[in-house]
Amino acid sequence: MILALDAMGGDKAPDVNIEGAILAVKQTSNDVLLVGKQDILYAQLEKWSQRYTFPKDRIRIVNAGEVIEMGEHPANAVRHKKDSSMAVCCKLVVDKQADAFVSMGNSGAAMATSLLYLKRIPGISRPVIAISFPTISGRCIISDAGANVDCKPEHLLQFAIMGNAYAKYSLGIKNPRVGILSIGEEETKGNELVLQTSKLLKKTNLNFIGNIEGGDVPKAKADIVICDGFVGNVFLKTSEGVAEMIGKLIKESIKSNPICWGATPFLKIAMKKVKKKIDYDETGGAPLLGVNAPCVIGHGKSDSKAVKNALIVAAKYAENNINKKIEEDINKFNTDVRENE
Amino acid sequence: MILALDAMGGDKAPDVNIEGAILAVKQTSNDVLLVGKQDILYAQLEKWSQRYTFPKDRIRIVNAGEVIEMGEHPANAVRHKKDSSMAVCCKLVVDKQADAFVSMGNSGAAMATSLLYLKRIPGISRPVIAISFPTISGRCIISDAGANVDCKPEHLLQFAIMGNAYAKYSLGIKNPRVGILSIGEEETKGNELVLQTSKLLKKTNLNFIGNIEGGDVPKAKADIVICDGFVGNVFLKTSEGVAEMIGKLIKESIKSNPICWGATPFLKIAMKKVKKKIDYDETGGAPLLGVNAPCVIGHGKSDSKAVKNALIVAAKYAENNINKKIEEDINKFNTDVRENE
Repeated sequence: MILALDAMGGDKAPDVNIEGAILAVKQTSNDVLLVGKQDILYAQLEKWSQRYTFPKDRIRIVNAGEVIEMGEHPANAVRHKKDSSMAVCCKLVVDKQADAFVSMGNSGAAMATSLLYLKRIPGISRPVIAISFPTISGRCIISDAGANVDCKPEHLLQFAIMGNAYAKYSLGIKNPRVGILSIGEEETKGNELVLQTSKLLKKTNLNFIGNIEGGDVPKAKADIVICDGFVGNVFLKTSEGVAEMIGKLIKESIKSNPICWGATPFLKIAMKKVKKKIDYDETGGAPLLGVNAPCVIGHGKSDSKAVKNALIVAAKYAENNINKKIEEDINKFNTDVRENE
Repeated sequence: MILALDAMGGDKAPDVNIEGAILAVKQTSNDVLLVGKQDILYAQLEKWSQRYTFPKDRIRIVNAGEVIEMGEHPANAVRHKKDSSMAVCCKLVVDKQADAFVSMGNSGAAMATSLLYLKRIPGISRPVIAISFPTISGRCIISDAGANVDCKPEHLLQFAIMGNAYAKYSLGIKNPRVGILSIGEEETKGNELVLQTSKLLKKTNLNFIGNIEGGDVPKAKADIVICDGFVGNVFLKTSEGVAEMIGKLIKESIKSNPICWGATPFLKIAMKKVKKKIDYDETGGAPLLGVNAPCVIGHGKSDSKAVKNALIVAAKYAENNINKKIEEDINKFNTDVRENE
């Protein structure tokens, strides 16, 4: 696969993007196109080349004259910066010079750019960010993690169908358990959006397991959790904040208790292992499901490992032709509904 | 103060309720009315009396023939069980034989019973559950924690005014920082409910600090966080689940690494301290703001310490006459709005 990487996007770009690209070509058979201001990229790539040995011909630089900054208003930025690194990435995909678009930059702008150039999969009304969340025994897909703040039940139904196809064909989960994020396990519990969406989900052939509470997601009770992007984003940010607080409180507690000081080095080893398990960098990026070409969006805070992993997620997504499966599943669902009417 | 305690409500009732009442009369000057099936309560109180020394005349038993179970449908239960322990508690408050109502039982039913018998504070359209959430440096009020799943901006505005009065006059926070739970710090970020509510909050004389992300709540960036009850409940349950997961992962990580085994006893000491800091039992219960008499609802899982603390929260609430302050603040706000129109 050939992956178009927005080399200018992210808090630590282009440094970590270039290192991430190098790590990806070393680990996989994919090629990376580094898209951005070529003068900067040539100089930086030269610098990193001295540190790593890698097949030089598998990382190529493509010039883009503009950069969309992290704080810019997405719609305005996309409208005015036609030569941004994001826009050039998407054009490479449209022109079949690349198989997927990957960005760690302004996520609103990455989404808007994808929609503008790559368009939506026929039948999909809103693309969704499908983030992989750590659980006690593995991972769970949160769909939507922040792309759509105000949703209708029909949107959430599509989030479920897309998340299901992704979990099944890209992550290899046989019959993914689809839950809807709610407040209480009973099916009478939830807001109007949840109650109406549940009615729709029951009519599908998805493995719908009903309501799932925020506290049950880490317990691995579902493989996919459906919610609107506002609730999904609150869920994710809260999880990060609480995990960080617990870590800090444990450290402080040990520090304030001389009898515990001897445990510090061992706790550090243990915490490192926990961090690896729940670390965002390990998954790297979230696919933007519903856009008509593989597109992966990463965290602005990404380091090189996260960039590498985002590139791997994108390559796997393209290889497995997930978008074709999503299109088929949506068509099948729509046909079934029409036949039953 | 005289506190009417629903002695039959909660997963471990009436045992922990009675022990909690004893601990409360030992620690404070308040009296407790144990409300429930008197035969059971006399026998249980007798049992606990052998274990604790306490002023016997300050715990009295009031009979109630029925019990609303934890799993019952709130509205149905309240409609049919007119002699429930919850209903009798509320009647005691209405008849001025008690100053506050406290329940660890079915929270939906406790809320419905309060609304039926105690009514709302004039000017308030919806009562709100104001939970105290642990932060790195103290506590933050989440308003609403689950009472109202689908809300309008006007409701959230009232949640803010009520939460502010509670934080100011009951918790003693001078100029409480009021944030609205959202996804991004910029004021353009959020769903329609957040954006519209923010406009209203800016018109008040509250110390409104704008959007606050889920991850920033544990960082103590606000004293009160406003949200609808669906989002608030997802926030709380997620926090509990993530904290539990981190604890488990640390334990497992230490267990799987023989080099760390020696650290286990010290970690246990540290974790105990952390648990105490974030433990629900330490706060005990959440006031139901907006009901026209002091009312505190606790977790079904409460133990005796949580019951004791819920009774203390209720007594403090009644002593400080928080409802009078809420009524004044709502009136003042409505007058200000009318004058500016």
